[in-house]
Amino acid sequence: MSEFNTDLPSIRKVQSYTKDKNAVAIKLLTNDILEGTILWQDPNCLCLQDQNNQQILIGRHAIAFIRPK
Amino acid sequence: MSEFNTDLPSIRKVQSYTKDKNAVAIKLLTNDILEGTILWQDPNCLCLQDQNNQQILIGRHAIAFIRPK
Amino acid sequence: MSEFNTDLPSIRKVQSYTKDKNAVAIKLLTNDILEGTILWQDPNCLCLQDQNNQQILIGRHAIAFIRPK
Amino acid sequence: MSEFNTDLPSIRKVQSYTKDKNAVAIKLLTNDILEGTILWQDPNCLCLQDQNNQQILIGRHAIAFIRPK
Amino acid sequence: MSEFNTDLPSIRKVQSYTKDKNAVAIKLLTNDILEGTILWQDPNCLCLQDQNNQQILIGRHAIAFIRPK
Amino acid sequence: MSEFNTDLPSIRKVQSYTKDKNAVAIKLLTNDILEGTILWQDPNCLCLQDQNNQQILIGRHAIAFIRPK
Repeated sequence: MSEFNTDLPSIRKVQSYTKDKNAVAIKLLTNDILEGTILWQDPNCLCLQDQNNQQILIGRHAIAFIRPK
Repeated sequence: MSEFNTDLPSIRKVQSYTKDKNAVAIKLLTNDILEGTILWQDPNCLCLQDQNNQQILIGRHAIAFIRPK
Repeated sequence: MSEFNTDLPSIRKVQSYTKDKNAVAIKLLTNDILEGTILWQDPNCLCLQDQNNQQILIGRHAIAFIRPK
Repeated sequence: MSEFNTDLPSIRKVQSYTKDKNAVAIKLLTNDILEGTILWQDPNCLCLQDQNNQQILIGRHAIAFIRPK
Repeated sequence: MSEFNTDLPSIRKVQSYTKDKNAVAIKLLTNDILEGTILWQDPNCLCLQDQNNQQILIGRHAIAFIRPK
Repeated sequence: MSEFNTDLPSIRKVQSYTKDKNAVAIKLLTNDILEGTILWQDPNCLCLQDQNNQQILIGRHAIAFIRPK
């Protein structure tokens, strides 16, 4: 992550997914697709709660893309 | 992304795709090819609107190349 | 790892896994899944103790995600 | 890209390919091989014109190697 | 490698493998597993001596994990 | 590449391969193995001359390891 600046649209978009508890799908560089709601984000990671209510700590560098589920 | 400087030709090229709503294909390091129009870019991500009008938040580090569709 | 700041939720989450000796599963970009308890973390690596009590030094850049086992 | 310094031999080599319109093959981390002539380079990307005259914007981080075609 | 600081436990762990000539297995992002003893480390690389006494210069960024053999 | 400092053993090792025109094998993250002699190195790339005397510009970030051939 080169910049964790909350003015950036990419950070704000994840913030809105988090606030609105939108269901998202996160595609990783491993080709895993993780589904759930984003609990929080920081400069290094996103924390996703999946359908089993498990919290998954995802490295930003490993994320290919995020889309609404 | 080492530099997000809007004087750079690579940033300007994505800006022109965005302004002109050109249809593009984005090849990712996962070998996914995402097609659509670029809504915006920032130092960390591009936001692509696909043919289902879904907004896909793509990490720059995960992009191999972008070409016109 | 862009930031090793112990105020960050992602660092604190790994600290709590470590302190509580939670069993975790760590998915790597190689698609390996390593299971065990986290002994410590630093800006570059995590040290995991597996079920054979072997200590595995994992590069942060190679971690896709961490979840409870 | 750690350094975009035009004194570096790697930057100069790409500049000479560009100036002389040499046909090159670019192998990506996705295992794609893109062939064409390099139009320009900047700290983040190379722009390649392929045999269909399409301009392909390639992320430097995604390039494994470049060789003459 | 974000930090090459010999106070870090991850650097010290590799130093101890080196000093004690422990046999280690190094898993790379290519899924290669290289076995041998670590001769030295620096901010960019580790140098491993394999069972044929060949010295292999390994990029830190390519290492997924290191474990005792 | 975090540091291009010619005091580092990893830089000096590549310098000695270059000076002595040692035949080396370079394993890439793509799983390609490129063989030849190293002509030069800079902070971003190595230039390898293969058995067809072709010069291959290799991104350091794409190199998993280098060993004598």
